[in-house]
Amino acid sequence: MKGQQRVIIENVKPQINCGEFPVKRVVGDKVEVEADVYSDSHDVLSAGVIYKHAGEREWHHVEMTYDINDRWEAQFKVSRLGTWHFTVRGWIDHFKSWHRDVLKKIDAQTDYASDLLVGAGIIHKSLAAFPDMAVEESDFLREIVSEFSRESQSAETRIDSLVSNTLYEVMIKYPVKEHVTTFHKTFEVTVERPRANFSSWYEVFPRSLSPVEGQHGTFNDVVEFLPYVAEMGFDVLYLPPIHPIGKTKRKGKNNSVTAQPGDPGSPWAIGGEEGGHKAIHPELGTMKDFTNLIEKAAGQGIEIAMDMAFQCSPDHPYVREHPEWFRHRPDGSLQYAENPPKKYEDIYPLNFETDDWQNLWEELKSVFLFWMEKGVKIFRVDNPHTKSIRFWGWIIGELKQLHPDAIFLAEAFTRPKVMYQLAKQGFTQSYTYFSWRNTKYDLTTYCEELVKTEVRDFFRPNFWPNTPDILPEYLQVSQRTGFIQRVALAATLSSNYGIYGPAFELMENVPVEPGKEEYLNSEKYELKHWDINQPNSLRKVIARLNKIRKENKALQNTHSLKFHDINNEALICYSKSSPGLDNIILAVVNLDPHHTHSGWINFPLQQFGMEPHSSFQVQDLMSGAFYLWNGEHNFVEIDPGIMPVHIFKVRRKVRSERDFDYFM
Amino acid sequence: MKGQQRVIIENVKPQINCGEFPVKRVVGDKVEVEADVYSDSHDVLSAGVIYKHAGEREWHHVEMTYDINDRWEAQFKVSRLGTWHFTVRGWIDHFKSWHRDVLKKIDAQTDYASDLLVGAGIIHKSLAAFPDMAVEESDFLREIVSEFSRESQSAETRIDSLVSNTLYEVMIKYPVKEHVTTFHKTFEVTVERPRANFSSWYEVFPRSLSPVEGQHGTFNDVVEFLPYVAEMGFDVLYLPPIHPIGKTKRKGKNNSVTAQPGDPGSPWAIGGEEGGHKAIHPELGTMKDFTNLIEKAAGQGIEIAMDMAFQCSPDHPYVREHPEWFRHRPDGSLQYAENPPKKYEDIYPLNFETDDWQNLWEELKSVFLFWMEKGVKIFRVDNPHTKSIRFWGWIIGELKQLHPDAIFLAEAFTRPKVMYQLAKQGFTQSYTYFSWRNTKYDLTTYCEELVKTEVRDFFRPNFWPNTPDILPEYLQVSQRTGFIQRVALAATLSSNYGIYGPAFELMENVPVEPGKEEYLNSEKYELKHWDINQPNSLRKVIARLNKIRKENKALQNTHSLKFHDINNEALICYSKSSPGLDNIILAVVNLDPHHTHSGWINFPLQQFGMEPHSSFQVQDLMSGAFYLWNGEHNFVEIDPGIMPVHIFKVRRKVRSERDFDYFM
Repeated sequence: MKGQQRVIIENVKPQINCGEFPVKRVVGDKVEVEADVYSDSHDVLSAGVIYKHAGEREWHHVEMTYDINDRWEAQFKVSRLGTWHFTVRGWIDHFKSWHRDVLKKIDAQTDYASDLLVGAGIIHKSLAAFPDMAVEESDFLREIVSEFSRESQSAETRIDSLVSNTLYEVMIKYPVKEHVTTFHKTFEVTVERPRANFSSWYEVFPRSLSPVEGQHGTFNDVVEFLPYVAEMGFDVLYLPPIHPIGKTKRKGKNNSVTAQPGDPGSPWAIGGEEGGHKAIHPELGTMKDFTNLIEKAAGQGIEIAMDMAFQCSPDHPYVREHPEWFRHRPDGSLQYAENPPKKYEDIYPLNFETDDWQNLWEELKSVFLFWMEKGVKIFRVDNPHTKSIRFWGWIIGELKQLHPDAIFLAEAFTRPKVMYQLAKQGFTQSYTYFSWRNTKYDLTTYCEELVKTEVRDFFRPNFWPNTPDILPEYLQVSQRTGFIQRVALAATLSSNYGIYGPAFELMENVPVEPGKEEYLNSEKYELKHWDINQPNSLRKVIARLNKIRKENKALQNTHSLKFHDINNEALICYSKSSPGLDNIILAVVNLDPHHTHSGWINFPLQQFGMEPHSSFQVQDLMSGAFYLWNGEHNFVEIDPGIMPVHIFKVRRKVRSERDFDYFM
Repeated sequence: MKGQQRVIIENVKPQINCGEFPVKRVVGDKVEVEADVYSDSHDVLSAGVIYKHAGEREWHHVEMTYDINDRWEAQFKVSRLGTWHFTVRGWIDHFKSWHRDVLKKIDAQTDYASDLLVGAGIIHKSLAAFPDMAVEESDFLREIVSEFSRESQSAETRIDSLVSNTLYEVMIKYPVKEHVTTFHKTFEVTVERPRANFSSWYEVFPRSLSPVEGQHGTFNDVVEFLPYVAEMGFDVLYLPPIHPIGKTKRKGKNNSVTAQPGDPGSPWAIGGEEGGHKAIHPELGTMKDFTNLIEKAAGQGIEIAMDMAFQCSPDHPYVREHPEWFRHRPDGSLQYAENPPKKYEDIYPLNFETDDWQNLWEELKSVFLFWMEKGVKIFRVDNPHTKSIRFWGWIIGELKQLHPDAIFLAEAFTRPKVMYQLAKQGFTQSYTYFSWRNTKYDLTTYCEELVKTEVRDFFRPNFWPNTPDILPEYLQVSQRTGFIQRVALAATLSSNYGIYGPAFELMENVPVEPGKEEYLNSEKYELKHWDINQPNSLRKVIARLNKIRKENKALQNTHSLKFHDINNEALICYSKSSPGLDNIILAVVNLDPHHTHSGWINFPLQQFGMEPHSSFQVQDLMSGAFYLWNGEHNFVEIDPGIMPVHIFKVRRKVRSERDFDYFM
């Protein structure tokens, strides 16, 4: 009976676009739910969160606790993959209201005899509603009922029963929930596997991995390359498209309009006479070589991630078989990709406004499923913001139903709302603006937008200091120090990060022309030959960073990121912690690649469960050095020529005389 | 075909609780709509708001303009009472996209011959879609089509047609809207009459208006009192309950538990043998006297507002006729109102959890309708937060359907979320915390919450410096100056305000005991006799304030309120303006009742359409004095003993030599 429901529920969080999209979590996470719950008058309420996995029939219930200003909160754990549902309920708690009021009356020494009779009635109702109540409890309640009803009983005895914690404790175990208000909407949580939240990516072009310079690399060469990747500590190895490359309008070196004989073309110009998105470029090897690579990688703790670029070279089979999926020009030609005055003649975009969109969508879904069946579960999706946004919501939803462990990384560098919308539609992780955030102010404001606003609930950042498309200006000028700084920032600010190598660890830094952020002689258009054993390679530094990430739970989440004051604009200081504060990491980075800087950190100890004036130990996990720090203000000095970053592990308790064996 | 829709719409504003509740406006207002509208890729979009009155069949359309960061905006006018609906639409604009891209190509001197053919196709589509296009326009477009198709035509001629504004202007008049996305939810606007937004209330107890001291006042005495109210400039005269008052458990003077013979009781203890909520207290007069009062008041521009207090004295007919509407105690007695240890034995609350709730709701609705039929359209609802909140949503909705001109003022002084929820459920206006906001900080933060957050769209404040229940501590100690200050603040900060008189203008300031905010010898429990002709009455000051409000449109809205810096904590400075800035009021109040204060105002001229260094004239409407001010920083000094408030009318332009008759 809705008219009798007096409780109002509103402003339930987390919710994205009024519940249109799910919140994201990984297995084992807690979902913290908040809501305004209140009613008319001054009765006492109870409130709870109900939740269940989509595959369960019954709702679980967890009680909410009152915070402040009619705000209530509770949390529940999501213990398995897939979709979960939750919502909030509230009801007037007549027992609690009665209990509070009668105690007030006793306190004010006003008459309460009639209230005891009311109480007896309420307890009686619970007895009737819970016939399976434990015998000792029901006996106890029955006794109280008769005590309250017997006026002959002395006032003191009756008060004793009333104020006994036992009555309260038994009664709240058996709440009679009348006229319950359930919030009118149920919210969804997409629960993914832990790697959705903690992953270290390495991007490599297989064709450049041949031991013989000038020869086209193969999947078998990638197998040989795996120990190098594993030694550096990466767990996702991402390969640019492995499909046949078109010959028509193929681009030459440095993106020149006409390819020379022998130029391999861009792997993103997908499709040739050997096939399209379900085929393998013959020079890389066979399907068997590919599945062998997946297996061998898995043996070393590495997952292979594929590139999924939904566009076609003029030679792609779709062009002949499904001309209706492309835009035609009045002169009969197909419309290549362009963003005037730029032209991409080697690529035809798919037309998502085609009347045959349903077949197009199904075909693209079948591409994903084809590779999933080969064992690929991680996809880096190329330029998703140039394909219909709703299409992504649909296809990721469909694929997640069959493969809830699939991970999709959106390679969208576009306007903020479009990037966020793609995340809402279901992308697991997203590229970010990190590549262009270099100053303390820019890094702080951007990261705080990611972790302190509602963005945290749907957008998982993946920080890349470089990609084959982006050689940031900062890396062009900042030398070795700048490369270390950027990879350390990426690896500690975000629990998901990646580099494009070996260009990164070998510190490639020459742009195609001054003022551009494209690589000179980009691997996108030619084979490279890398000397990974160069003595000045950053492989050891990167290996240390990844080891620190693996050994410290604090770095395996992004949400706990907090920035701390440090009185020097060149230094940035921030911390991360694990749930329960078992592991705390405090990082300080010198953002100036040229000069030594020092400053005083303000580390708010109380937020980390320490007394403001206590002593504590920090160990710099990069150098191994230990320091004993005192109180909230501590001094650091960083010479970037030695190492531009401190990654301190904070040990909260230091020993004192009390720990000395014979103290007691 | 949803799959072909590429435009995404989100974050539409204004919306309250995801569209669960309507936004509020008055007739003639603009509704400013904003939304994020964007799509994949880089096509040009068009977006619009569609809107209509609930009684209309067809939607109106207004184009949105692009603001920044994918945000679009538009506004529409609500020209009549009742419910309006609106939502947002967006689509890829193929003509605009083509037009932009081809101009870019011309600019970059790349080939665009094929693009002209594409353009011809787009124009042709418009011609087909709009067969009723004006002949000169369709002729013009046809000519362009043939021009674009004729390759023989010289490039220059074709470019001229292309870049001509005429082509663009004609084409955007006939937009071919394909694959339109319409936001999945429609939003409501409740449009009320102007008095919902601009009203000056005066509360008076009719029983105290007899010319003969000790005699019970009548409706006819109120008629005699009307010229006094009109002279002060009030337009709503609000009477406490006019129904029979219960005798059982009647309260005596100063809320004593036992009434003495002759004590009239509290008008809020409604119901006696003469009837309940549809009856009139016999000592006040007859129904005819009451309807006569309504008419006479209307003749002087005053509307009568009734009190609606849904509670019953023990003698109310409902107690006998509908015992199921009340809570019963096990001893057979009815549960009176209490908030332990406080007791209100003269009042029985209605039990909104009754199983007979439907009949209860209908009966209460019939009470409102009864009085509406007598001509009452404004109701001050007593303690709505002690009745089921959903009940208010229902009853106000039902009543508004029949009487869209009805106004409901919620007398809820309770926790913020409950007060806001009542407003969301439909109350036209609400009492506020103004009575307890005395300092610059408190007034500023509270008013900014009301006008700068989403609260502005559903909660219309009504500021009261006093009520029969509240004699604020500040008024108890601040003397005449304090009374003037508080009424001036109320009348200028909020476009809806009211006072409880004659207690206010006669500056009654003695509390029932020190530390309490109840009046001594409160009119709630006894007859009073007021000497409204006391020479020190504030009636003239109040009359001037109301005159200023009537003559200045800026003060007839609350939303335009802006606070301005002034470098003295005792001075508060704020402005209001009319739409279009035709009328600008700048107020400065000295909040210290004891000392003269001075300070420099920072009045941001550019926000008000003036140059930062211009001269302008201000006239203090309280004193009549004129000042010529220069630039943004101007000096004020206020001696509170003379008048604690300046209410400046800002005249933006002052005369210069250019205005001199013979200048030219």
